[in-house]
Amino acid sequence: MAEHDQSKESLQESLQQVIHLLSKHRLVESLVHKQDMPRHDLVETLVHKQNLTELQKKLDELHPADVAYILEALPIEQRLLVWDLVKAERDGEILLEVSDAVRQTLIARMDSEELLAAAEQLDTDEIADLAPDLPQDVFQELLVTLDSQNRERLTSAMSYPDDTVGALMDFDIVTIRDDISLEVALRYLRRLGKLPDHSDKLFVVDRRDRLLGVLPLKRLVVNDPELSVAAVMADDPVIFHPEEDASEAAQAFARYDLVTAPVVDADNKLVGRLTVDAVMDFIREESESEVLSLAGLREEEDIFSSVWKSMQNRWTWLAINLVTAFIASRVIGLFEGSIERIVALAALMPIVAGIGGNSGNQTITMIVRGLALGQINMHNMKTLFMKEIGVSLLNGLIWGGVLGVAAYFLYHNVALGLVMTGAMTLNLLLAAIMGVGIPLLMTKLGRDPAVGSSVMITAVTDSGGFFIFLGLATVFLM
Amino acid sequence: MAEHDQSKESLQESLQQVIHLLSKHRLVESLVHKQDMPRHDLVETLVHKQNLTELQKKLDELHPADVAYILEALPIEQRLLVWDLVKAERDGEILLEVSDAVRQTLIARMDSEELLAAAEQLDTDEIADLAPDLPQDVFQELLVTLDSQNRERLTSAMSYPDDTVGALMDFDIVTIRDDISLEVALRYLRRLGKLPDHSDKLFVVDRRDRLLGVLPLKRLVVNDPELSVAAVMADDPVIFHPEEDASEAAQAFARYDLVTAPVVDADNKLVGRLTVDAVMDFIREESESEVLSLAGLREEEDIFSSVWKSMQNRWTWLAINLVTAFIASRVIGLFEGSIERIVALAALMPIVAGIGGNSGNQTITMIVRGLALGQINMHNMKTLFMKEIGVSLLNGLIWGGVLGVAAYFLYHNVALGLVMTGAMTLNLLLAAIMGVGIPLLMTKLGRDPAVGSSVMITAVTDSGGFFIFLGLATVFLM
Repeated sequence: MAEHDQSKESLQESLQQVIHLLSKHRLVESLVHKQDMPRHDLVETLVHKQNLTELQKKLDELHPADVAYILEALPIEQRLLVWDLVKAERDGEILLEVSDAVRQTLIARMDSEELLAAAEQLDTDEIADLAPDLPQDVFQELLVTLDSQNRERLTSAMSYPDDTVGALMDFDIVTIRDDISLEVALRYLRRLGKLPDHSDKLFVVDRRDRLLGVLPLKRLVVNDPELSVAAVMADDPVIFHPEEDASEAAQAFARYDLVTAPVVDADNKLVGRLTVDAVMDFIREESESEVLSLAGLREEEDIFSSVWKSMQNRWTWLAINLVTAFIASRVIGLFEGSIERIVALAALMPIVAGIGGNSGNQTITMIVRGLALGQINMHNMKTLFMKEIGVSLLNGLIWGGVLGVAAYFLYHNVALGLVMTGAMTLNLLLAAIMGVGIPLLMTKLGRDPAVGSSVMITAVTDSGGFFIFLGLATVFLM
Repeated sequence: MAEHDQSKESLQESLQQVIHLLSKHRLVESLVHKQDMPRHDLVETLVHKQNLTELQKKLDELHPADVAYILEALPIEQRLLVWDLVKAERDGEILLEVSDAVRQTLIARMDSEELLAAAEQLDTDEIADLAPDLPQDVFQELLVTLDSQNRERLTSAMSYPDDTVGALMDFDIVTIRDDISLEVALRYLRRLGKLPDHSDKLFVVDRRDRLLGVLPLKRLVVNDPELSVAAVMADDPVIFHPEEDASEAAQAFARYDLVTAPVVDADNKLVGRLTVDAVMDFIREESESEVLSLAGLREEEDIFSSVWKSMQNRWTWLAINLVTAFIASRVIGLFEGSIERIVALAALMPIVAGIGGNSGNQTITMIVRGLALGQINMHNMKTLFMKEIGVSLLNGLIWGGVLGVAAYFLYHNVALGLVMTGAMTLNLLLAAIMGVGIPLLMTKLGRDPAVGSSVMITAVTDSGGFFIFLGLATVFLM
């Protein structure tokens, strides 16, 4: 029995083996290049070939997802060498598994024929996932090879935006009628001989393909075979529509513990199905991109992409940040006179700005999450707002007090200590107000509050913190 | 047919209805309290009762997950009112669905008897999830009510740490022998009459409960009933062990597209099963806590928790940040003499520190992700390191150059502009080195690189940025 433990260890082990074989290969290559004696050549080429054969054998044994993992973990040059060794008929499956960035490096290596051959191995919904990365001419040729039903499915699947149910669904549906007995249904399945991956239910439709219910395999196997499908099926399954938001569908999948679910059009006609693995991939990608976007990375980055590509991925955020930092700098510039007179202000001001930024980010994370879950609404907004005000007021007085005392001991200036405490409290209040206000405003304007809210709050608490602290100092200390 | 669209809209709608009924209830209550005329009393009490009955009816119709959602979206007082209206026999299911923070508020409201009754409704693995939140005496009483097999299961399930397979698995396993025919297996299932949720396969064991393979229901229904289980079963299923890391198991679930999988002990004895819904919940919680911890929130926060509880949840991070901000402030303090002479330094220094922090966070996010996926190792570390150095060097020269020019135009000082460019470049280099180095060092020390790495990099680039900029200025401009 293939132990899973082994299979996981072996994923790391496989990676190490591939790297080892690659390095042997490279060693031989460099020998061949350095030594020109023809006598050696033959031996070297043999060893060389042997290594590659071993490597190829190793790759053939691996699950497509594992080959994808190894490809992602290898620097470009070695990645392409390994890619060339992968059997052509597995190309399609593997392309589906790798990240977008790595997929582009692999596709760039393939000619039209190879790409066409790879795509032809795939199901229509899988082709739809791959299509945006394919060169236009390959895609056109591909369309020609499909029959009219699949061509229609492909164009319809591609017409749905990335974050809708339509983009996640597949077409591996097995349908039955409701007027047959379970016995007949079982005979039909035995004739079929195979069910699609993840099939946990059959879809019950009328003759015009309209969904009547679903027959879970569980019910099929535990019930009396004499009973009719209609008597045993669930007639109120959770259903989805292709144009629905994928992340809401994902929440529903988790909430109602679904494995597969039917997707129907406006006329209740069955058009596809959603499976838990597509939903799980979607959740993982979504949470990934949330973490990446918090750090200002535009998309998943191939860790071995060129310096130039990496910079493009990271520039937007840095540029925005440069602008906000520059504004904050100009706010300080307004008070250069005050700083010249009390230089301690320069040393203390980053504390006020920094703590405000942190506190604001905590508030905004809470609010964005509550909005995403739909748990924040007009009704409870005021309660929440008052709570955040309370937290920031207390934090400001306590931490601001501590810092005020610290400032007093450092600079022996009571007024400076009081200004410090006051500025901290006011900046934390500003952070709380903006931390609640920015996401709510963005939602009102119909924008996603998760995108860029962290940048905005930090910009406000930086510039605001400098302004409040230096402003108070100018008023009370000069 | 219950349209899913409706059921999702109705989740929001249900919430609104509950809030509406609650507010009617509150209105009546306040009337009762204000007016003391006994004549009114009766009428009011009747209306009052009617509202609550309506509310209770509404709650009874909702899925436990949906009731949990509504409880989370209500302020404490209203939440407890709704909680009192929930039928006692549903308490257990609903407690399982709410977040830890909200669960605590609900449990605090219940007496021992109610808690015991709620827990008795649940499966052993579910009790294990709930147990840490139960008062000790309730838990002891609960143990007494269980039979010896379930007591053993409960204590074993609770012995596994939160982030292991043992904590996620359940015990809803249906086993068969391998020497029977599919026909006999089907008869056995029909006698059982019901299969556990998510059952997509039966577990095939020998007489000592050791796992021989799995029989997917898919195969059971499509194959000739005369065949033996041994001939049809998959004899190399992906298996898990209870002590395995849950997040690795989750990755394997996603990679191999599993719905359920057997969990076996060291002797290959079947001890439980892992289901996709437990894995999906785990993934969601993990990604949630990743986002929360990035913002320095210790745990999922009940959005309506008291100001005091919220502050505790957020203090650790603020305290750490206060310390790092204070250190940065002391670094500036070292150079007060220089700032006194060129006050422009005070205005420019936050830019150098800020951009360094952003760039460092981008690097560290990439590296932490690569480490978590196991794609970064000794072999490719150097390549990665050189790439990050390259990116930061280029960014430093380009953005630092832009800022140098800006500084020149603001202050008409060529040397100041050059110092700005130099400091930016050096601080971005520092950010890259630390962004790669900190996670690697933490991994070497056996710690989770995701926790606190963002705080550390920001601390380094803040203090480092101030030191580099003010240091260069002191050397070259004074």
